[in-house]
Amino acid sequence: MPHDVLLAEATRGNRVESRHYGAAVVVDATGKTVFAAGDVETPIYPRSTVKALQALPLLTEGAADKYNLGQEALALACASHQGEPAHVAVAADMLARTGRDATSLECGTHWPLDARAARALATSGEQASALHNCCSGKHAGFVCLSCATGHDPEHYTRPEHPVMQAVARTLEEVTGIPHTDDNRGTDGCAIPTWAIPLHALAKAYARFATGQSLTPERAQAATRLRSAIAANPFMVAGTNQFDTRVMQVLAPRVFTKMGAEGVMIAMLPEKGLGIAIKCRDGGVRAAEAAAAALIARFGTENNPELAHFMRQNLKNWNGQSVGEFRVSATLAEDHYPAAPS
Amino acid sequence: MPHDVLLAEATRGNRVESRHYGAAVVVDATGKTVFAAGDVETPIYPRSTVKALQALPLLTEGAADKYNLGQEALALACASHQGEPAHVAVAADMLARTGRDATSLECGTHWPLDARAARALATSGEQASALHNCCSGKHAGFVCLSCATGHDPEHYTRPEHPVMQAVARTLEEVTGIPHTDDNRGTDGCAIPTWAIPLHALAKAYARFATGQSLTPERAQAATRLRSAIAANPFMVAGTNQFDTRVMQVLAPRVFTKMGAEGVMIAMLPEKGLGIAIKCRDGGVRAAEAAAAALIARFGTENNPELAHFMRQNLKNWNGQSVGEFRVSATLAEDHYPAAPS
Repeated sequence: MPHDVLLAEATRGNRVESRHYGAAVVVDATGKTVFAAGDVETPIYPRSTVKALQALPLLTEGAADKYNLGQEALALACASHQGEPAHVAVAADMLARTGRDATSLECGTHWPLDARAARALATSGEQASALHNCCSGKHAGFVCLSCATGHDPEHYTRPEHPVMQAVARTLEEVTGIPHTDDNRGTDGCAIPTWAIPLHALAKAYARFATGQSLTPERAQAATRLRSAIAANPFMVAGTNQFDTRVMQVLAPRVFTKMGAEGVMIAMLPEKGLGIAIKCRDGGVRAAEAAAAALIARFGTENNPELAHFMRQNLKNWNGQSVGEFRVSATLAEDHYPAAPS
Repeated sequence: MPHDVLLAEATRGNRVESRHYGAAVVVDATGKTVFAAGDVETPIYPRSTVKALQALPLLTEGAADKYNLGQEALALACASHQGEPAHVAVAADMLARTGRDATSLECGTHWPLDARAARALATSGEQASALHNCCSGKHAGFVCLSCATGHDPEHYTRPEHPVMQAVARTLEEVTGIPHTDDNRGTDGCAIPTWAIPLHALAKAYARFATGQSLTPERAQAATRLRSAIAANPFMVAGTNQFDTRVMQVLAPRVFTKMGAEGVMIAMLPEKGLGIAIKCRDGGVRAAEAAAAALIARFGTENNPELAHFMRQNLKNWNGQSVGEFRVSATLAEDHYPAAPS
């Protein structure tokens, strides 16, 4: 098993202050490895990076059409959002189309992840609800899928529920990795998750990006989801988030999705490539830097947003520059950006 | 240089999801190493772990007595607090004793780090001020020091200001590590910081814990600061924070202080030991787990709060257990706790 590689580091003054190690892989839809660094074969939990795969049954089973879900809703079904008002409104609308409301959500409740949205919600005198949960769009999609296919959505998060069965089958078939008791865990929003190799995750997204090796129904669904995400990068994440910032300038040539514990995926449809990254310590900042570098390098993209995430000034509370956070040269190679001003 | 060791890991289902590596050392006041794991000689930025050392001149120069600062104020001068109302009130009172207010603070402004306090502040219609900055107590102490010694506090954060000179001299003398351009950086709250070996940091705190190898004035000041912290663990951090939780049950036998980017120190005065930890990736959760383990092991402390930070259930938003976060066996050895229920 190859050792993990340096993904990114934080400096302060003349010194490196912190270092993040991990693995990254770039794969085409046939599974051919274009680039690999670190351990890309040991299964990792993909966390929220598989949300677009989990959303496929919402379309293939006819639920999106039955409830006439718009592009914002389809994008939100793939989202880890910040609980901002637009996210909450779309999630509520998805549920309303099934005749249901937030009480049908089984994702749990937390305050908006966006600090400004949390303060505004508090100021308004309202309380956090399941609609503010970062996974509420995905779960609203599950409720739509359940109702559209004639199943009571109660307990839709349980492995034996027809919704979870359909989602699990899709994940297995698109990633090619069988689900076993050994690779199963429970995700932050209560649904089952399965550990898979980084290589298989990247291959699945090369397929999602191109439609290759997918059933015609899934290929069509993937196209619709990509289109919805490209039109609504804000819905997928929110203010100042990596996915939103990068896709606002680079979709539909580039798609990205973060996951908890330092996982990232990206798609380069025109290049036919999928990218998957795991920062071994769970550090999101390093996974973002690595994703930006591999998008620049293998997507031949040159954009200030990518450069920002590859190499950014670290500032103190007074706005003084105290160091930088920068991707490793191993990942960025010739695409290493100049020091930020 | 020894390789860093596993400090802690997060599991999900049957698998390890994320791993944190770093270094840790336990040292007595003569510099004798009792335990070392990983690279403890390469200089690291100690960040907020040196706040108690930085507070020594506040006492040795007579400022604490001149302004009749109480124990809460002395504890807050050593704090990285969460911006809760009690923290803000004490910082404001410290400034008022010099005839000044928050406009004299040069630490910058941010919303309270405690999410509940931030929402409450927003709900009240107020804005964040420099008093809510996590370093406002330290900076209020600097203003007190400046005024008490007859210096205009303006620009007290600049290296050439007499306050920063006094603080730098104290750090150099107590840690034994000369300050050079090579090891200098700027901290998050705008003041100069110097990288030092983890071993030197632990030795400095063994001295702070015992008074050994300190000048009589500094030894007395250290005793007063330890007493103030032991009486006010809430002032040093805040609701649900590691330092507050651990010291509420274990001070004055145990003192701890977190720093940004995964640094932690601890003191075991009765054992004559100082502890210093750096999680290489900056992960605070791993530094906390490591500190808890070394306190249990070298302080022969057995307490549920320590066990909690050594090995805790990870729960999803619904409160279901999905895995655990646990310290490495290398650090905990015979003190490894049973799986949490």
